[in-house]
Amino acid sequence: MRQLVIISGASGGFGRAFALSISNNKIPLFPLSNTKYVLLGRNIQSTNETKELLLNQQDGCEDQVSVMQMDLSNVDNVKNQTKDLLDKYNGVYDRVLLLNNAGDIGELKYVHELSEDLNLVQDHMTVNVTSCFIINSLFLDTFKSIDKIIVNVSSLLSTVPMSCWSLYCTSKSARKMMHEVIAREHKEKLRVLNYQPGPLEGTNITQKIKTSGMSDEETQKAFSNMTYISTSDSADKLCKILSDDTFENGSSIDYFDE
Amino acid sequence: MRQLVIISGASGGFGRAFALSISNNKIPLFPLSNTKYVLLGRNIQSTNETKELLLNQQDGCEDQVSVMQMDLSNVDNVKNQTKDLLDKYNGVYDRVLLLNNAGDIGELKYVHELSEDLNLVQDHMTVNVTSCFIINSLFLDTFKSIDKIIVNVSSLLSTVPMSCWSLYCTSKSARKMMHEVIAREHKEKLRVLNYQPGPLEGTNITQKIKTSGMSDEETQKAFSNMTYISTSDSADKLCKILSDDTFENGSSIDYFDE
Repeated sequence: MRQLVIISGASGGFGRAFALSISNNKIPLFPLSNTKYVLLGRNIQSTNETKELLLNQQDGCEDQVSVMQMDLSNVDNVKNQTKDLLDKYNGVYDRVLLLNNAGDIGELKYVHELSEDLNLVQDHMTVNVTSCFIINSLFLDTFKSIDKIIVNVSSLLSTVPMSCWSLYCTSKSARKMMHEVIAREHKEKLRVLNYQPGPLEGTNITQKIKTSGMSDEETQKAFSNMTYISTSDSADKLCKILSDDTFENGSSIDYFDE
Repeated sequence: MRQLVIISGASGGFGRAFALSISNNKIPLFPLSNTKYVLLGRNIQSTNETKELLLNQQDGCEDQVSVMQMDLSNVDNVKNQTKDLLDKYNGVYDRVLLLNNAGDIGELKYVHELSEDLNLVQDHMTVNVTSCFIINSLFLDTFKSIDKIIVNVSSLLSTVPMSCWSLYCTSKSARKMMHEVIAREHKEKLRVLNYQPGPLEGTNITQKIKTSGMSDEETQKAFSNMTYISTSDSADKLCKILSDDTFENGSSIDYFDE
Protein backbone atom coordinates (compact mmCIF):
# COMPACT_ATOMS: atom_id res chain seq x y z
CA MET A 1 0.00 0.00 0.00
CA ARG A 2 1.36 3.37 -1.01
CA GLN A 3 0.40 6.17 1.35
CA LEU A 4 0.57 9.94 1.42
CA VAL A 5 0.53 12.22 4.46
CA ILE A 6 0.15 15.98 4.08
CA ILE A 7 0.70 18.16 7.15
CA SER A 8 0.15 21.90 7.24
CA GLY A 9 1.94 23.97 9.85
CA ALA A 10 4.74 21.39 9.95
CA SER A 11 7.48 23.85 10.87
CA GLY A 12 7.19 23.01 14.57
CA GLY A 13 4.77 22.55 17.43
CA PHE A 14 1.95 20.08 16.99
CA GLY A 15 2.52 19.62 13.24
CA ARG A 16 6.08 18.46 13.79
CA ALA A 17 5.13 16.27 16.76
CA PHE A 18 2.40 14.60 14.73
CA ALA A 19 4.76 13.87 11.82
CA LEU A 20 7.22 12.21 14.19
CA SER A 21 4.51 10.30 16.05
CA ILE A 22 2.38 9.00 13.17
CA SER A 23 5.43 7.74 11.25
CA ASN A 24 6.84 5.97 14.27
CA ASN A 25 3.82 4.79 16.17
CA LYS A 26 3.58 1.47 17.99
CA ILE A 27 0.86 0.59 15.55
CA PRO A 28 2.53 2.01 12.46
CA LEU A 29 -0.25 3.59 10.46
CA PHE A 30 1.97 5.59 8.18
CA PRO A 31 5.55 4.27 8.45
CA LEU A 32 8.11 6.10 6.38
CA SER A 33 8.86 2.87 4.50
CA ASN A 34 5.65 3.05 2.48
CA THR A 35 4.56 6.63 3.06
CA LYS A 36 5.39 9.86 1.32
CA TYR A 37 5.33 12.83 3.71
CA VAL A 38 4.60 16.34 2.47
CA LEU A 39 5.36 19.03 5.03
CA LEU A 40 3.86 22.47 4.48
CA GLY A 41 5.14 25.42 6.46
CA ARG A 42 5.52 29.17 6.27
CA ASN A 43 9.04 29.01 7.63
CA ILE A 44 11.04 26.86 5.22
CA GLN A 45 14.07 26.47 7.51
CA SER A 46 12.04 25.14 10.44
CA THR A 47 10.04 22.89 8.15
CA ASN A 48 13.28 21.46 6.80
CA GLU A 49 14.31 20.75 10.38
CA THR A 50 11.13 18.69 10.79
CA LYS A 51 12.12 16.79 7.67
CA GLU A 52 15.57 16.05 9.09
CA LEU A 53 14.09 14.84 12.37
CA LEU A 54 11.68 12.60 10.48
CA LEU A 55 14.41 11.10 8.29
CA ASN A 56 16.85 10.63 11.17
CA GLN A 57 14.20 8.91 13.26
CA GLN A 58 13.74 6.14 10.74
CA ASP A 59 16.84 6.20 8.54
CA GLY A 60 14.69 7.36 5.68
CA CYS A 61 15.68 8.49 2.21
CA GLU A 62 15.68 12.10 1.15
CA ASP A 63 12.83 11.69 -1.35
CA GLN A 64 10.39 10.19 1.14
CA VAL A 65 9.80 13.62 2.64
CA SER A 66 8.99 16.75 0.66
CA VAL A 67 8.92 20.24 2.06
CA MET A 68 6.87 23.07 0.58
CA GLN A 69 6.88 26.67 1.67
CA MET A 70 3.26 27.84 1.88
CA ASP A 71 1.97 31.14 3.18
CA LEU A 72 -1.71 30.68 4.01
CA SER A 73 -2.38 34.42 4.03
CA ASN A 74 -2.18 34.52 0.23
CA VAL A 75 -5.28 32.80 -1.14
CA ASP A 76 -4.10 32.69 -4.76
CA ASN A 77 -0.82 31.08 -3.75
CA VAL A 78 -2.59 28.54 -1.55
CA LYS A 79 -4.87 27.65 -4.46
CA ASN A 80 -2.13 27.33 -7.06
CA GLN A 81 0.40 25.59 -4.84
CA THR A 82 -2.16 23.10 -3.53
CA LYS A 83 -3.36 22.35 -7.07
CA ASP A 84 0.22 21.74 -8.26
CA LEU A 85 0.94 19.56 -5.25
CA LEU A 86 -2.18 17.42 -5.56
CA ASP A 87 -1.93 17.06 -9.35
CA LYS A 88 1.55 15.68 -8.84
CA TYR A 89 0.37 13.01 -6.40
CA ASN A 90 -2.98 12.19 -8.02
CA GLY A 91 -3.24 8.51 -8.98
CA VAL A 92 -0.07 7.49 -7.17
CA TYR A 93 -1.36 6.54 -3.71
CA ASP A 94 -3.87 4.14 -2.15
CA ARG A 95 -4.49 6.05 1.06
CA VAL A 96 -3.97 9.64 2.08
CA LEU A 97 -4.10 11.62 5.30
CA LEU A 98 -4.42 15.40 5.58
CA LEU A 99 -3.70 17.16 8.88
CA ASN A 100 -5.16 20.66 8.84
CA ASN A 101 -2.92 21.96 11.56
CA ALA A 102 -1.74 25.38 10.36
CA GLY A 103 -3.34 28.30 12.06
CA ASP A 104 -2.76 31.60 13.69
CA ILE A 105 -3.82 32.52 17.21
CA GLY A 106 -4.77 36.08 16.32
CA GLU A 107 -4.50 39.13 18.54
CA LEU A 108 -5.61 38.50 22.14
CA LYS A 109 -7.66 41.65 22.51
CA TYR A 110 -11.26 42.64 23.10
CA VAL A 111 -13.33 42.93 19.92
CA HIS A 112 -13.55 46.71 20.31
CA GLU A 113 -9.77 46.96 20.72
CA LEU A 114 -9.28 45.17 17.39
CA SER A 115 -10.71 48.27 15.71
CA GLU A 116 -7.20 49.70 15.95
CA ASP A 117 -6.01 47.39 13.19
CA LEU A 118 -8.87 45.78 11.32
CA ASN A 119 -6.62 44.27 8.64
CA LEU A 120 -5.83 41.64 11.26
CA VAL A 121 -9.40 40.37 11.01
CA GLN A 122 -9.23 39.71 7.28
CA ASP A 123 -5.78 38.13 7.59
CA HIS A 124 -6.90 35.87 10.41
CA MET A 125 -9.98 34.59 8.56
CA THR A 126 -7.94 34.01 5.40
CA VAL A 127 -5.23 32.00 7.16
CA ASN A 128 -7.50 30.02 9.47
CA VAL A 129 -10.73 29.53 7.56
CA THR A 130 -10.56 30.34 3.83
CA SER A 131 -7.20 28.66 3.16
CA CYS A 132 -8.21 25.56 5.09
CA PHE A 133 -11.46 25.40 3.11
CA ILE A 134 -9.57 25.71 -0.19
CA ILE A 135 -7.12 22.95 0.71
CA ASN A 136 -9.99 20.66 1.77
CA SER A 137 -11.95 21.34 -1.40
CA LEU A 138 -9.02 20.56 -3.70
CA PHE A 139 -7.99 17.56 -1.59
CA LEU A 140 -11.48 16.02 -1.76
CA ASP A 141 -11.82 16.75 -5.46
CA THR A 142 -8.46 15.16 -6.24
CA PHE A 143 -8.68 12.01 -4.13
CA LYS A 144 -12.31 11.08 -4.83
CA SER A 145 -11.85 7.34 -5.17
CA ILE A 146 -9.26 6.43 -2.53
CA ASP A 147 -9.40 6.11 1.25
CA LYS A 148 -8.91 9.43 2.96
CA ILE A 149 -8.49 10.77 6.47
CA ILE A 150 -8.85 14.45 7.31
CA VAL A 151 -7.93 15.64 10.80
CA ASN A 152 -8.70 19.20 11.78
CA VAL A 153 -6.62 20.53 14.65
CA SER A 154 -9.45 22.05 16.62
CA SER A 155 -9.71 23.56 20.07
CA LEU A 156 -11.94 23.64 23.11
CA LEU A 157 -12.43 27.28 22.11
CA SER A 158 -14.31 26.15 19.00
CA THR A 159 -17.30 25.76 21.32
CA VAL A 160 -16.37 27.81 24.40
CA PRO A 161 -16.42 31.60 23.94
CA MET A 162 -13.63 33.38 25.79
CA SER A 163 -12.89 37.08 26.30
CA CYS A 164 -10.03 38.41 24.16
CA TRP A 165 -10.11 35.27 22.00
CA SER A 166 -12.72 36.43 19.48
CA LEU A 167 -10.63 35.80 16.38
CA TYR A 168 -9.46 32.37 17.52
CA CYS A 169 -12.89 31.28 18.81
CA THR A 170 -14.60 32.49 15.64
CA SER A 171 -12.21 30.76 13.24
CA LYS A 172 -12.02 27.54 15.28
CA SER A 173 -15.81 27.38 15.40
CA ALA A 174 -15.92 27.88 11.63
CA ARG A 175 -13.36 25.12 11.04
CA LYS A 176 -15.11 22.66 13.32
CA MET A 177 -18.35 23.13 11.39
CA MET A 178 -16.54 22.99 8.02
CA HIS A 179 -15.23 19.53 8.87
CA GLU A 180 -18.59 18.40 10.21
CA VAL A 181 -20.20 19.26 6.88
CA ILE A 182 -17.43 17.44 5.00
CA ALA A 183 -18.02 14.33 7.13
CA ARG A 184 -21.71 14.49 6.35
CA GLU A 185 -21.11 14.83 2.60
CA HIS A 186 -18.96 11.70 2.42
CA LYS A 187 -20.49 8.46 3.57
CA GLU A 188 -17.62 6.40 2.09
CA LYS A 189 -13.85 6.47 1.77
CA LEU A 190 -13.46 9.34 4.20
CA ARG A 191 -12.84 9.61 7.92
CA VAL A 192 -13.00 13.08 9.45
CA LEU A 193 -11.99 14.05 12.97
CA ASN A 194 -11.92 17.34 14.86
CA TYR A 195 -9.10 16.81 17.34
CA GLN A 196 -8.64 19.20 20.25
CA PRO A 197 -4.98 18.78 21.23
CA GLY A 198 -5.22 20.54 24.59
CA PRO A 199 -3.08 23.45 25.79
CA LEU A 200 0.33 22.67 24.32
CA GLU A 201 3.74 23.53 25.74
CA GLY A 202 6.39 25.04 23.52
CA THR A 203 4.34 26.27 20.59
CA ASN A 204 4.12 29.75 19.08
CA ILE A 205 0.66 29.97 20.57
CA THR A 206 1.84 29.18 24.11
CA GLN A 207 4.57 31.76 23.72
CA LYS A 208 2.07 34.41 22.68
CA ILE A 209 -0.35 33.53 25.48
CA LYS A 210 2.37 33.88 28.08
CA THR A 211 3.77 37.17 26.80
CA SER A 212 0.89 39.07 25.28
CA GLY A 213 -0.79 40.48 28.40
CA MET A 214 -4.48 40.10 27.60
CA SER A 215 -6.77 42.98 28.45
CA ASP A 216 -9.03 40.61 30.30
CA GLU A 217 -7.43 39.80 33.65
CA GLU A 218 -9.61 36.81 34.37
CA THR A 219 -8.69 35.15 31.09
CA GLN A 220 -5.01 36.03 31.44
CA LYS A 221 -5.00 34.45 34.90
CA ALA A 222 -6.73 31.30 33.65
CA PHE A 223 -4.11 30.83 30.95
CA SER A 224 -1.18 31.69 33.21
CA ASN A 225 -2.24 29.06 35.74
CA MET A 226 -2.97 26.40 33.14
CA THR A 227 -1.08 23.12 32.99
CA TYR A 228 0.33 22.71 29.52
CA ILE A 229 0.94 19.32 27.93
CA SER A 230 3.69 18.26 25.58
CA THR A 231 3.06 18.25 21.85
CA SER A 232 4.37 14.67 21.59
CA ASP A 233 1.95 13.36 24.25
CA SER A 234 -0.94 15.00 22.45
CA ALA A 235 0.23 13.77 19.03
CA ASP A 236 0.55 10.22 20.42
CA LYS A 237 -3.02 10.44 21.69
CA LEU A 238 -4.25 11.48 18.24
CA CYS A 239 -2.35 8.57 16.65
CA LYS A 240 -4.01 6.20 19.12
CA ILE A 241 -7.45 7.57 18.17
CA LEU A 242 -6.69 7.16 14.46
CA SER A 243 -5.30 3.69 15.06
CA ASP A 244 -8.34 2.54 17.06
CA ASP A 245 -10.50 4.03 14.29
CA THR A 246 -13.68 3.88 16.34
CA PHE A 247 -14.48 7.60 16.45
CA GLU A 248 -17.73 8.87 14.98
CA ASN A 249 -17.19 10.57 11.64
CA GLY A 250 -16.99 14.35 12.00
CA SER A 251 -16.92 14.22 15.79
CA SER A 252 -14.77 16.30 18.12
CA ILE A 253 -12.40 14.55 20.52
CA ASP A 254 -10.33 16.36 23.12
CA TYR A 255 -6.94 15.26 24.46
CA PHE A 256 -8.50 15.06 27.92
CA ASP A 257 -11.44 12.91 26.81
CA GLU A 258 -11.40 9.32 28.05
CA MET B 1 -34.38 59.36 24.77
CA ARG B 2 -32.67 59.58 21.39
CA GLN B 3 -32.21 56.22 19.71
CA LEU B 4 -30.33 54.83 16.74
CA VAL B 5 -31.07 51.65 14.81
CA ILE B 6 -28.63 50.31 12.22
CA ILE B 7 -29.75 47.46 9.98
CA SER B 8 -27.52 45.69 7.48
CA GLY B 9 -29.09 43.87 4.55
CA ALA B 10 -32.05 46.25 4.71
CA SER B 11 -32.86 46.09 0.99
CA GLY B 12 -35.53 43.44 1.54
CA GLY B 13 -36.31 40.13 3.24
CA PHE B 14 -35.78 39.93 6.97
CA GLY B 15 -33.90 43.25 7.22
CA ARG B 16 -36.83 45.16 5.78
CA ALA B 17 -39.39 43.22 7.83
CA PHE B 18 -37.47 43.95 11.03
CA ALA B 19 -37.26 47.68 10.27
CA LEU B 20 -41.03 47.81 9.76
CA SER B 21 -41.75 45.68 12.83
CA ILE B 22 -39.41 47.23 15.41
CA SER B 23 -40.51 50.78 14.55
CA ASN B 24 -44.19 49.90 14.75
CA ASN B 25 -44.39 47.29 17.46
CA LYS B 26 -47.19 47.04 19.99
CA ILE B 27 -44.59 47.79 22.62
CA PRO B 28 -42.76 50.49 20.69
CA LEU B 29 -39.10 49.95 21.42
CA PHE B 30 -37.77 52.09 18.63
CA PRO B 31 -40.60 54.28 17.31
CA LEU B 32 -39.71 56.52 14.41
CA SER B 33 -40.61 59.56 16.52
CA ASN B 34 -37.45 59.31 18.63
CA THR B 35 -35.33 56.95 16.57
CA LYS B 36 -32.95 57.48 13.70
CA TYR B 37 -32.88 54.53 11.30
CA VAL B 38 -29.83 53.75 9.19
CA LEU B 39 -30.47 51.21 6.47
CA LEU B 40 -27.47 49.54 4.86
CA GLY B 41 -27.88 47.61 1.64
CA ARG B 42 -25.99 46.53 -1.45
CA ASN B 43 -28.91 47.44 -3.71
CA ILE B 44 -29.59 51.14 -3.18
CA GLN B 45 -32.91 51.14 -5.01
CA SER B 46 -34.41 48.33 -2.91
CA THR B 47 -33.01 49.87 0.27
CA ASN B 48 -34.68 53.16 -0.64
CA GLU B 49 -37.94 51.24 -1.03
CA THR B 50 -37.55 50.01 2.55
CA LYS B 51 -37.08 53.63 3.60
CA GLU B 52 -40.29 54.67 1.82
CA LEU B 53 -42.23 51.85 3.46
CA LEU B 54 -40.87 52.84 6.85
CA LEU B 55 -41.76 56.52 6.41
CA ASN B 56 -45.19 55.80 4.97
CA GLN B 57 -46.02 53.46 7.83
CA GLN B 58 -45.61 56.18 10.43
CA ASP B 59 -45.86 59.45 8.54
CA GLY B 60 -42.20 60.05 9.26
CA CYS B 61 -39.91 62.79 8.03
CA GLU B 62 -37.30 62.24 5.35
CA ASP B 63 -34.34 62.79 7.69
CA GLN B 64 -35.42 60.15 10.23
CA VAL B 65 -34.25 57.42 7.89
CA SER B 66 -30.85 57.30 6.19
CA VAL B 67 -29.86 54.89 3.48
CA MET B 68 -26.29 53.87 2.75
CA GLN B 69 -25.08 51.69 -0.08
CA MET B 70 -22.62 49.18 1.36
CA ASP B 71 -21.01 46.26 -0.42
CA LEU B 72 -19.76 43.86 2.25
CA SER B 73 -17.43 42.08 -0.16
CA ASN B 74 -15.02 45.03 -0.10
CA VAL B 75 -13.34 45.09 3.32
CA ASP B 76 -11.73 48.50 2.90
CA ASN B 77 -15.02 50.07 1.94
CA VAL B 78 -16.80 48.42 4.86
CA LYS B 79 -14.16 49.76 7.22
CA ASN B 80 -14.16 53.31 5.88
CA GLN B 81 -17.91 53.61 5.40
CA THR B 82 -18.66 52.20 8.85
CA LYS B 83 -16.12 54.54 10.47
CA ASP B 84 -17.63 57.57 8.72
CA LEU B 85 -21.12 56.48 9.67
CA LEU B 86 -20.34 55.88 13.34
CA ASP B 87 -18.23 59.02 13.74
CA LYS B 88 -21.20 61.00 12.51
CA TYR B 89 -23.54 59.51 15.13
CA ASN B 90 -21.10 59.27 18.01
CA GLY B 91 -22.27 61.25 21.06
CA VAL B 92 -25.73 61.93 19.66
CA TYR B 93 -27.76 58.99 20.95
CA ASP B 94 -28.68 57.37 24.28
CA ARG B 95 -29.39 53.88 22.99
CA VAL B 96 -28.43 52.04 19.85
CA LEU B 97 -29.38 48.78 18.18
CA LEU B 98 -27.39 46.97 15.49
CA LEU B 99 -28.98 44.20 13.45
CA ASN B 100 -26.30 42.13 11.73
CA ASN B 101 -28.60 40.76 9.10
CA ALA B 102 -26.66 41.01 5.81
CA GLY B 103 -25.33 37.76 4.53
CA ASP B 104 -24.94 35.60 1.50
CA ILE B 105 -26.15 32.02 1.23
CA GLY B 106 -23.17 30.85 -0.79
CA GLU B 107 -23.13 28.17 -3.46
CA LEU B 108 -25.17 25.10 -2.53
CA LYS B 109 -22.61 22.54 -3.63
CA TYR B 110 -20.49 19.81 -2.10
CA VAL B 111 -17.15 21.01 -0.75
CA HIS B 112 -15.27 19.19 -3.51
CA GLU B 113 -17.48 20.79 -6.18
CA LEU B 114 -16.57 24.24 -4.88
CA SER B 115 -13.03 23.58 -6.18
CA GLU B 116 -14.36 24.74 -9.56
CA ASP B 117 -14.47 28.34 -8.36
CA LEU B 118 -12.53 28.84 -5.16
CA ASN B 119 -12.84 32.62 -5.26
CA LEU B 120 -16.35 32.05 -3.97
CA VAL B 121 -14.91 30.83 -0.67
CA GLN B 122 -12.95 34.01 -0.01
CA ASP B 123 -15.89 36.19 -1.06
CA HIS B 124 -18.29 34.30 1.18
CA MET B 125 -16.09 34.56 4.27
CA THR B 126 -15.47 38.26 3.62
CA VAL B 127 -19.16 39.12 3.28
CA ASN B 128 -20.45 36.89 6.08
CA VAL B 129 -17.70 36.82 8.69
CA THR B 130 -14.96 39.44 8.22
CA SER B 131 -17.26 42.36 7.39
CA CYS B 132 -19.59 41.52 10.26
CA PHE B 133 -16.62 41.36 12.62
CA ILE B 134 -15.36 44.75 11.42
CA ILE B 135 -18.76 46.41 11.87
CA ASN B 136 -19.08 44.94 15.38
CA SER B 137 -15.60 46.05 16.36
CA LEU B 138 -16.13 49.64 15.23
CA PHE B 139 -19.64 49.73 16.70
CA LEU B 140 -18.43 48.57 20.13
CA ASP B 141 -15.48 50.95 20.09
CA THR B 142 -17.66 53.91 19.18
CA PHE B 143 -20.57 53.37 21.56
CA LYS B 144 -18.62 52.33 24.66
CA SER B 145 -20.65 54.24 27.22
CA ILE B 146 -24.25 53.94 26.04
CA ASP B 147 -26.78 51.11 26.10
CA LYS B 148 -26.39 48.82 23.12
CA ILE B 149 -28.19 45.87 21.58
CA ILE B 150 -26.57 43.67 18.94
CA VAL B 151 -28.70 41.06 17.19
CA ASN B 152 -27.03 38.56 14.91
CA VAL B 153 -29.32 36.99 12.35
CA SER B 154 -28.21 33.42 12.87
CA SER B 155 -29.50 30.09 11.62
CA LEU B 156 -30.20 26.57 12.78
CA LEU B 157 -27.36 25.70 10.40
CA SER B 158 -24.92 27.50 12.72
CA THR B 159 -24.98 24.29 14.76
CA VAL B 160 -26.39 21.67 12.37
CA PRO B 161 -24.05 20.57 9.56
CA MET B 162 -25.83 19.98 6.26
CA SER B 163 -24.60 18.60 2.94
CA CYS B 164 -24.10 21.24 0.23
CA TRP B 165 -24.33 24.02 2.82
CA SER B 166 -20.67 24.11 3.84
CA LEU B 167 -20.14 27.82 3.19
CA TYR B 168 -23.32 28.86 4.96
CA CYS B 169 -22.85 26.47 7.90
CA THR B 170 -19.22 27.52 8.32
CA SER B 171 -19.90 31.25 8.27
CA LYS B 172 -23.03 31.02 10.44
CA SER B 173 -21.12 28.97 13.00
CA ALA B 174 -18.37 31.61 12.98
CA ARG B 175 -20.85 34.44 13.47
CA LYS B 176 -22.66 32.70 16.31
CA MET B 177 -19.38 32.27 18.17
CA MET B 178 -18.28 35.84 17.37
CA HIS B 179 -21.38 37.21 19.09
CA GLU B 180 -21.01 34.81 22.02
CA VAL B 181 -17.51 36.18 22.65
CA ILE B 182 -18.77 39.75 22.38
CA ALA B 183 -21.48 38.99 24.97
CA ARG B 184 -18.85 37.56 27.28
CA GLU B 185 -16.59 40.60 26.91
CA HIS B 186 -19.32 43.05 27.94
CA LYS B 187 -20.94 42.61 31.30
CA GLU B 188 -22.66 46.01 31.13
CA LYS B 189 -24.50 48.22 28.67
CA LEU B 190 -24.73 45.50 26.05
CA ARG B 191 -27.34 42.91 25.17
CA VAL B 192 -26.40 40.35 22.51
CA LEU B 193 -28.71 37.85 20.86
CA ASN B 194 -28.23 35.22 18.17
CA TYR B 195 -31.66 35.03 16.57
CA GLN B 196 -32.53 32.16 14.24
CA PRO B 197 -35.39 33.53 12.13
CA GLY B 198 -36.50 30.18 10.71
CA PRO B 199 -36.91 29.30 7.02
CA LEU B 200 -38.24 32.51 5.51
CA GLU B 201 -40.58 32.92 2.56
CA GLY B 202 -39.82 35.43 -0.17
CA THR B 203 -36.14 36.12 0.46
CA ASN B 204 -33.20 35.83 -1.94
CA ILE B 205 -32.14 32.79 0.03
CA THR B 206 -35.49 31.02 -0.39
CA GLN B 207 -35.39 31.78 -4.09
CA LYS B 208 -31.94 30.28 -4.41
CA ILE B 209 -32.87 27.18 -2.40
CA LYS B 210 -35.87 26.50 -4.60
CA THR B 211 -34.08 26.97 -7.90
CA SER B 212 -30.49 25.90 -7.40
CA GLY B 213 -30.82 22.12 -7.62
CA MET B 214 -28.47 20.92 -4.89
CA SER B 215 -26.23 17.98 -5.66
CA ASP B 216 -27.44 16.27 -2.53
CA GLU B 217 -30.91 14.89 -3.22
CA GLU B 218 -31.78 14.29 0.42
CA THR B 219 -31.03 17.90 1.32
CA GLN B 220 -32.82 19.27 -1.74
CA LYS B 221 -35.90 17.25 -0.82
CA ALA B 222 -35.83 18.45 2.79
CA PHE B 223 -35.76 22.06 1.67
CA SER B 224 -38.38 21.58 -1.05
CA ASN B 225 -40.83 20.08 1.45
CA MET B 226 -40.15 22.66 4.14
CA THR B 227 -42.83 25.01 5.42
CA TYR B 228 -41.58 28.56 5.10
CA ILE B 229 -42.69 31.35 7.39
CA SER B 230 -43.24 35.02 6.59
CA THR B 231 -40.49 37.53 7.30
CA SER B 232 -42.93 39.75 9.18
CA ASP B 233 -44.03 36.93 11.54
CA SER B 234 -40.39 36.18 12.29
CA ALA B 235 -39.50 39.85 12.73
CA ASP B 236 -42.45 40.29 15.12
CA LYS B 237 -41.17 37.36 17.16
CA LEU B 238 -37.73 38.93 17.42
CA CYS B 239 -39.29 42.23 18.52
CA LYS B 240 -41.23 40.37 21.22
CA ILE B 241 -38.00 38.76 22.48
CA LEU B 242 -36.24 42.13 22.57
CA SER B 243 -39.22 43.72 24.27
CA ASP B 244 -39.45 41.01 26.95
CA ASP B 245 -35.69 41.40 27.41
CA THR B 246 -35.35 38.22 29.44
CA PHE B 247 -33.00 36.31 27.11
CA GLU B 248 -29.62 35.23 28.35
CA ASN B 249 -26.85 37.41 26.96
CA GLY B 250 -25.20 35.82 23.93
CA SER B 251 -27.74 33.03 23.71
CA SER B 252 -29.32 31.61 20.56
CA ILE B 253 -33.10 31.71 20.19
CA ASP B 254 -34.96 30.16 17.27
CA TYR B 255 -38.26 31.35 15.83
CA PHE B 256 -39.74 27.97 16.72
CA ASP B 257 -38.57 28.06 20.34
CA GLU B 258 -41.27 28.47 22.96
